[in-house]
Amino acid sequence: MIKIAIDAMGGDFGPEPIIEGLILAIRNNNNFTAIAVGDKEQLSLLIPPAFNHRIEILDTKDVISMHDSATDALKRKESTIYRAIELVKEGKANAVVSAGHSGATMSLATLKIGRLKGVSRPAIATLMPTSENQNTLVLDVGANVDSDAKNLFQFAIMGQAYAQSVLRLDEPMIGLLSNGEEESKGNEVTKECYKLLSSAKVPNFAGNVEGADIFKGTVDVVVCDGFVGNILLKTAEGVADTIGKIIKKNLKRSLISIAGAVLMRKVFKSLKVRVDYAEYGGAPLLGVKAPVIISHGKSNPKAIKNAIFQAIISASSNLDSIIEQRLEKYTIKEDSIKKDTI
Amino acid sequence: MIKIAIDAMGGDFGPEPIIEGLILAIRNNNNFTAIAVGDKEQLSLLIPPAFNHRIEILDTKDVISMHDSATDALKRKESTIYRAIELVKEGKANAVVSAGHSGATMSLATLKIGRLKGVSRPAIATLMPTSENQNTLVLDVGANVDSDAKNLFQFAIMGQAYAQSVLRLDEPMIGLLSNGEEESKGNEVTKECYKLLSSAKVPNFAGNVEGADIFKGTVDVVVCDGFVGNILLKTAEGVADTIGKIIKKNLKRSLISIAGAVLMRKVFKSLKVRVDYAEYGGAPLLGVKAPVIISHGKSNPKAIKNAIFQAIISASSNLDSIIEQRLEKYTIKEDSIKKDTI
Repeated sequence: MIKIAIDAMGGDFGPEPIIEGLILAIRNNNNFTAIAVGDKEQLSLLIPPAFNHRIEILDTKDVISMHDSATDALKRKESTIYRAIELVKEGKANAVVSAGHSGATMSLATLKIGRLKGVSRPAIATLMPTSENQNTLVLDVGANVDSDAKNLFQFAIMGQAYAQSVLRLDEPMIGLLSNGEEESKGNEVTKECYKLLSSAKVPNFAGNVEGADIFKGTVDVVVCDGFVGNILLKTAEGVADTIGKIIKKNLKRSLISIAGAVLMRKVFKSLKVRVDYAEYGGAPLLGVKAPVIISHGKSNPKAIKNAIFQAIISASSNLDSIIEQRLEKYTIKEDSIKKDTI
Repeated sequence: MIKIAIDAMGGDFGPEPIIEGLILAIRNNNNFTAIAVGDKEQLSLLIPPAFNHRIEILDTKDVISMHDSATDALKRKESTIYRAIELVKEGKANAVVSAGHSGATMSLATLKIGRLKGVSRPAIATLMPTSENQNTLVLDVGANVDSDAKNLFQFAIMGQAYAQSVLRLDEPMIGLLSNGEEESKGNEVTKECYKLLSSAKVPNFAGNVEGADIFKGTVDVVVCDGFVGNILLKTAEGVADTIGKIIKKNLKRSLISIAGAVLMRKVFKSLKVRVDYAEYGGAPLLGVKAPVIISHGKSNPKAIKNAIFQAIISASSNLDSIIEQRLEKYTIKEDSIKKDTI
């Protein structure tokens, strides 16, 4: 039986949506139990007694807020996220889900749970919607700035392993995000990473891809530095949001358009499902020794439910060993080729 | 009288849309003449004789194609873009508009026309739509990868000068694109550029901005490295395109939705105007000694017309001297502060 530790207090809206999401997950999946980490007094009011045998509460009151620094979080040993991660470290839980301070979650997970063998820096991966019925996994979207070629190389291996063993894709294709498709395109770091991926003969490396390819679904995994990934993510959200606003603003101008919009409601609803992060749950932190799912601070119960399911699938998969095996296999090759060319 | 040199052959669809755009511009503006550079036989068939006194043809047949490398272009002295840029170099034209190979245009302009005093690398700037009735100028969107902090600093000065003297904005605000608003956010290069802009006391520097701010219109000018800018641009296009595709795909599924869509046509049309690059014309290459407007290869006549108007406004402005004066003013300050801290 898999056990999921949940930071029940860290989200922007307090414990309600988190516990509601947990209960949704429990209702739909009989194969796990949970430890909700937070203020027992508040939490026990939200959990129906019928679920007491599947939800344990670990009573702790300190919560890292969005205004706290990630380094502060490392010292606050009684905070919900610290305790939740400690549960995994001590083997009392298999995975963590947190909608709290993402920097704190990342730092604590890296430090306390530890990195997988061969991983220099863990990376945050996220799913982006495409116009086809599939998604593109993009990493890193914010864990690391100033990544070097070796970091990007590891992100590629980790992303491909996740796409295969958790998203269950056959032979997922990797693309390296660049300013053009040609091998000659890129900045110094991506050009070097291109060489690493090619010479190590990492399977299904499709070469460089461009920003638009993410939404076309050209490849399954897109690799980039966390600075670039964060800007990409916020840009995509910004464009979608702006298009929505422009549509709304124009709608107000004409009664006929309003009538049209009412009729198109169904279309927009289906559109929302395609671009709604709640469908995917949260962003996995790849490269640490246990599944850590970082959810949006504004997660609704559905997003939390899906994040818990993600954690369960990750915890039941052989993701970690695949990452370690592949990093060993391909990184050795990279080194030997490097020596050859010196 | 301003004279505009136009590469009449470089676009993806040959000379027709270029000449058509030129004629549109001539019909709407009496204050310029043009030199159309290209195959005289083809071009003269497209120009109504009534306009012969305003359009000169410079006969040359070689065209740099999208498959040629930018370095090749430097050697092909009989190509349309080479000759068009030479016209500016020799003082026979005041500005260039090209819908051809953007790398070739950029390299030739930088090499032949030359950089403004104080500019290390010219940058390509582009206007992005916002949900408010204004646009955001983003630079660099592809001229330079691996920009250093000094390059970004110069982009900021050049972009602000362009916003002021060509876009006619009062006191345009500059934002530095980063992975968070706080001063502590950024990669090594942007953090250093932040310090340069602050310590030089460049007016109206608003600090870091995020990807979504571009489309909110938080600031007037957003500064980034060309690798990041290119990815941002392609991502924005990709998201807009994908949303369009998802809407269309869903529309097909229901008759009611189709009825709704017909009614909403007006809204979509107005939306298209807001996000259509043809409205803005082309992307100026900032930092060279004459206005160079790089248009999209797929430009329609309207886009060419607007690119020509952009070139005219730039050529009539004091943009170049403002850039040189400000670079001198603020870069000196930067140096002295650097010395102070050593």
